[in-house]
Amino acid sequence: MNGYWAVGVDLGATKLEVARVEWGGKIVDSIRVPTNVEGTPAAVERDIVEAARLLTERAGKAPVGIGVGVAGQIERHTGRVLFGPNLNWREVPLRADLEEALEMAAVVTNDVRAVTWGEWLYGAGKGFDDVICLFVGTGIGGGVVSGGRVLSGHANSAGELGHIVIDMNGPPCTCGNRGCLEALASGWAIAREARGMIGRDPASGSMLLAAAGGAPEAVTAETVAQCAHRGDALCLDLLDGVGRALATGCVSLVNAFNPARLVLGGGVIDGLPEMIDRVRRGVMQDALASASASCEIVPGMLGPGAGVVGAASLAMRAFGGETEGPVGG
Amino acid sequence: MNGYWAVGVDLGATKLEVARVEWGGKIVDSIRVPTNVEGTPAAVERDIVEAARLLTERAGKAPVGIGVGVAGQIERHTGRVLFGPNLNWREVPLRADLEEALEMAAVVTNDVRAVTWGEWLYGAGKGFDDVICLFVGTGIGGGVVSGGRVLSGHANSAGELGHIVIDMNGPPCTCGNRGCLEALASGWAIAREARGMIGRDPASGSMLLAAAGGAPEAVTAETVAQCAHRGDALCLDLLDGVGRALATGCVSLVNAFNPARLVLGGGVIDGLPEMIDRVRRGVMQDALASASASCEIVPGMLGPGAGVVGAASLAMRAFGGETEGPVGG
Repeated sequence: MNGYWAVGVDLGATKLEVARVEWGGKIVDSIRVPTNVEGTPAAVERDIVEAARLLTERAGKAPVGIGVGVAGQIERHTGRVLFGPNLNWREVPLRADLEEALEMAAVVTNDVRAVTWGEWLYGAGKGFDDVICLFVGTGIGGGVVSGGRVLSGHANSAGELGHIVIDMNGPPCTCGNRGCLEALASGWAIAREARGMIGRDPASGSMLLAAAGGAPEAVTAETVAQCAHRGDALCLDLLDGVGRALATGCVSLVNAFNPARLVLGGGVIDGLPEMIDRVRRGVMQDALASASASCEIVPGMLGPGAGVVGAASLAMRAFGGETEGPVGG
Repeated sequence: MNGYWAVGVDLGATKLEVARVEWGGKIVDSIRVPTNVEGTPAAVERDIVEAARLLTERAGKAPVGIGVGVAGQIERHTGRVLFGPNLNWREVPLRADLEEALEMAAVVTNDVRAVTWGEWLYGAGKGFDDVICLFVGTGIGGGVVSGGRVLSGHANSAGELGHIVIDMNGPPCTCGNRGCLEALASGWAIAREARGMIGRDPASGSMLLAAAGGAPEAVTAETVAQCAHRGDALCLDLLDGVGRALATGCVSLVNAFNPARLVLGGGVIDGLPEMIDRVRRGVMQDALASASASCEIVPGMLGPGAGVVGAASLAMRAFGGETEGPVGG
């Protein structure tokens, strides 16, 4: 296993990370650049290829392959990016392009699913066959491991856990539906709710408004978290509702999937670690005992590196012949 | 495969069915008795054993084994019934008891999961690797096939689809939570809502009350369906809400699991087949296109026999050595 590694790529709408990940999930070298969303997909592909070559040069040994997690919808058997709304990509044959340019085997998956692979194999879900990862950031995404396999669904779209409905009479979601978990507990939903509260009651929103430099449109979930931690009543009240929504969504997930570990991660959770305890209490109180008794609710362990670790581990599994390394390697 | 068969048992709180099921999912002989819920578990086990012996005698050939679907929570690796609330069972070693009494291999699963096996292998989900079965009767239960496997979860409790929350501010559920799909769309929820409507507005509820013989407590989901089909405004209104709730729950399931087939069955659906179209429209409109585009929403095909067929097919898979029959058999 000495020196055995894969390239892991986390391709998001703002940031592109390309890393050398060794057997065991260890990041030993990494290159980060802003994602070139203004240019063509070919320009982004060039950035990935260059970084992979540089990492290989520095490693002094070729990787077993390259794994990519993309913020978009992927066609499973071809590795094409069907649609990446925030990247502004449509029908990009990413796997074929990378294989041709790098002359190595490539695997492409959704970015959230890559993070799920990482947390499952090397992080907070390690050692369990039934794991749900829920990532609460600007949006909410998820991944599900059941019976020792990552679920992909019929059209490779399984795990859209931000779009389970928890309040059928709730606020509109960006997906076109209403009352989705994402519409009540994501970063954008928290910001929207906070701006609405300021508009309705500027006096109560004064701390929040000041924290955002006086501009309501500059309020983010992070501003809300900061003010809540300084004791602001309006923000505490708002986050109480967010906690209730998150707990409700997790109750649904625990009842439907019966996981051994429910892993919570993403920027909103990182900024509001108290949410983990809130969800824990909600699930213990409101989920079916048969489903919740053996379920632990835990924070993600890999942090922002989970994406490259997961993507690389997929490549190692696919091209290295074994779960965690080559046979006898 | 000639004469190759298994005993399939559907053990519900009101009815016990024991059947001879042949390779291919065909019921060729069947015995039904009321479930002896007043007696001890041993009395019910005796009824199963006697029926299995009688079926074997009539078949003139021994079965490969016996499969049982039980209305309760099953310990996966032992086949113990941990808890069967409506049977009034706790900690019954059903698999071991049947194996000893019948001297044949036994497999025990949850009744809803047995029905899921039946619809997947021989019914409306046949040929697909990603199938959800949702059964709407007095309660709501479900089963999930993903990537060609029936999900069981960490504690064998996966698939409690009646207890995903669709309205976090909704009415209380029997599980202790509120706003579960079951609390808004099950047979008991429909009856509760109808009785409440009669109480609040006896004039509008007159047709419903008459159909129930003048006794509000005699109103059932079936009465509501009958009156709606005769054009009663109150019942049509009530069922409009039920349809919306069912569609909302199915949107969550489609987004989370991305199935190729969503199979709807159970007494409430049988009495209100128009619900299938309502759910279809809701899912097409409100689920993510990536998840719904390739999903068909269809009625169950096996009817009340799905339980014995599914339970027997489990036994054939477990003890016959093959998906649909013994190798070379």
